[in-house]
Amino acid sequence: MAEPHRNSTNLYCTRTASLCALGLATMLSASIQAKPPVTTAAKSAPAQTTAAVLAAAKPGDWRALDPQNTLYLELPSGRVVIELAPAFAPNHIANIKALAREKYYDGLAIVRAQDNYVVQMNDPDYENEATRKPIKTAKRSLPPEFTVPWDAKIPFTRLPDPDGYAPETGFSNGFAAARDLKAQRTWLTHCYGTVGVGRLNPVDSGGGPELYVVIGTPPRQLDRNVTVVGRVVKGVELLSTLPRGTGPYSMYEKPEQRTPINAIRVAADVPEKERTLLDVLRTDTSTFDAFVESRRNHREDWYAAQAGHINVCNVDIPVRPTPDAH
Amino acid sequence: MAEPHRNSTNLYCTRTASLCALGLATMLSASIQAKPPVTTAAKSAPAQTTAAVLAAAKPGDWRALDPQNTLYLELPSGRVVIELAPAFAPNHIANIKALAREKYYDGLAIVRAQDNYVVQMNDPDYENEATRKPIKTAKRSLPPEFTVPWDAKIPFTRLPDPDGYAPETGFSNGFAAARDLKAQRTWLTHCYGTVGVGRLNPVDSGGGPELYVVIGTPPRQLDRNVTVVGRVVKGVELLSTLPRGTGPYSMYEKPEQRTPINAIRVAADVPEKERTLLDVLRTDTSTFDAFVESRRNHREDWYAAQAGHINVCNVDIPVRPTPDAH
Repeated sequence: MAEPHRNSTNLYCTRTASLCALGLATMLSASIQAKPPVTTAAKSAPAQTTAAVLAAAKPGDWRALDPQNTLYLELPSGRVVIELAPAFAPNHIANIKALAREKYYDGLAIVRAQDNYVVQMNDPDYENEATRKPIKTAKRSLPPEFTVPWDAKIPFTRLPDPDGYAPETGFSNGFAAARDLKAQRTWLTHCYGTVGVGRLNPVDSGGGPELYVVIGTPPRQLDRNVTVVGRVVKGVELLSTLPRGTGPYSMYEKPEQRTPINAIRVAADVPEKERTLLDVLRTDTSTFDAFVESRRNHREDWYAAQAGHINVCNVDIPVRPTPDAH
Repeated sequence: MAEPHRNSTNLYCTRTASLCALGLATMLSASIQAKPPVTTAAKSAPAQTTAAVLAAAKPGDWRALDPQNTLYLELPSGRVVIELAPAFAPNHIANIKALAREKYYDGLAIVRAQDNYVVQMNDPDYENEATRKPIKTAKRSLPPEFTVPWDAKIPFTRLPDPDGYAPETGFSNGFAAARDLKAQRTWLTHCYGTVGVGRLNPVDSGGGPELYVVIGTPPRQLDRNVTVVGRVVKGVELLSTLPRGTGPYSMYEKPEQRTPINAIRVAADVPEKERTLLDVLRTDTSTFDAFVESRRNHREDWYAAQAGHINVCNVDIPVRPTPDAH
C-alpha cells in the first residue's frame, strides 16, 4: 500500500464521514492543493481543505470532554462514549446520571436495531411491573424536555444555510441544535449518533430508563418529539454494525440476539486511568467557521462541483484523542 | 410478546426507517388513530398514517422491478438487490451490465467500510496494471454522467419542500432526484442506499469497475460529483452492518477482512425461480403523494409535534415482495 498522505487527514478520515474522496487511488496519493478551485458560494471563512483547517487549529480551538457530562456505555465489544448536553435536558440528564450511578443500566440490553434508523436499549421486562428491574433513587419518568426556553446565555453558532425543519439551525457547545426565536425555544436536532430518551405515547412517559441512538439518515421528524440528551463522540460503529433485528420494529426476536449492556458509567466515576480522554472541536470559534466552510465547499482536488450549502447534520464535528493524555 | 398490530404496518416497519414509534409499549400496542391530530402544515394530500396509506394502495400503485435494470450483488451473507436508473446514467449502466455479464465483479471484494459514509467495492489490485483483473468487452472508464440534460419526458414528482443543495428535489421512477430548470440539468441525489461509481480525480476516470453504497447521513456534497446509477432496494443491512475498516479512509488493513463478492448479476440473466421479486411504490401517483405527506406530518398517536417538512432523502420509498410471486 502506497504511503498515505498527511497524518492529520488520515486520522480524521478513519473515523468521520464524508471527508474522504471516493476514488481509491485518490485516497492513497492525494495531496493538499495550494490553490483551491473556484467556489460557487463566497463565504467569510477562508477557502481551505478540512485537513488544512484542522492542521492550523490552535490548542484553544479544542475543549476536553467534561467527565461529569460524559457517559461510557460499556458493551462486550468495547466502549461507546457519549457527551451529554445539560443545557438542553437538565432534568433528564440528572436522572440518567442517577440511573447510571445506581447501576440501573448494568445488565440491560440493546433490544432493537433498525437499519437506517435507531438502536434502542432498555430493560426487556420494562412493561412487566412484576419482573422488571426496580429503580431505586432515580425516577422512571419525567416531564418532557423536548425543547427548552431560548436563553441568550446559551451559546449558538448559527448556520447561515437554510433548513426546512427549523427556523434556524446551528451549534451549541458541540451539539447540532435548532432555534425558534419567535417561539423563544431551542432544541437539539436528530443527527447520526444523537442519543435520545425513548417514551410511550404520553409525552411525560420517558425519563431515561430507555435510550436510543440514531444510526441512519437524520430522523429530523423526531425533533421536538423526544428529549435529546447528547451524542456519541466515539464508538458509534459498535452500535451501527449490530445485526438488525428481524421482529416487528426490528426488535430482536430471541433474547440471545440482544447485546448485553455491561454498564453505563458517568466518566467522573471511572478511575482516571481508565477514562477515554477526548477533545471536541469548539463550535464557537473562527476555526470552527472555517471547518464548516471546508465541509460546505470541499476544496480537495477530487471535487468537481461544490455544494454551496451544508445541512446541520452533515457537519461532522471533529473529535480527537486528547494530546499527551496519560 | 404482545400481539403486534396490523400486518401492513409491521411488514413496513421491519425494513424501513422512521415509521415506528420509539416507545417500546407503543410499538407493541399502538393502534391506528381514527382522527388525526391537528397538523401544522395543510397539504393537498389527506391526513393519514403511513400504514393507512399503504393499506389503501391499489395494485396499480406498485410496479415490479424490471429485471433488465436490476442487479443482484451476491455476498456470502446473502443478496443485495439494486435497482438501476438508466434515465440518469445510460452509458455507465450499460457498462456495469457489461461488466456483470463478463463476470468482472465476481471474486472482487468490499475493500472499505466507513461508518456513517460508504462501503466501497473494487478490485484490490485495480491500480496495478500487471496484476489487476482484466476487463474484456466492457470499458474501464467513461465520460461522466454526473448530471443529464433535463428532458420533459423524464418523470419528476416535485417535492414542494425546500432543499438547500438543489433548486428542486423530487422523485423520478422511484429514485430521489434533483432538478435545475435554469441550467436544464437533472441528477440523482445521494441518500441512504444510493449506489454510485467511484472515480479518481479526473472526472472521466470512473466507469463502473468501482462501486460504492451510502450507509449513513446523506452525503449530498457528492451530488454532481459522481455518476449515480441506482439504489439498494433490499439487503442494504448486509452492507451497513459490515465491520468498519481501520486503515486510512476506513479501508480494511488485511485482505482477509474484506468481504468477497461472489457475483454481481443482471436479474434478467438469473433463472426466474432464483429471482427476488419485488415491487416498488410508484412515485407518480396520488397514493405516493399521500405517502409523502404521511412521512412529512406523522399522524401516528405517538407524535406530539409534526415536522411540516420533509427532506427528499427522508422519503423511504416503500418496497414489498411481489404478491403471489412464485
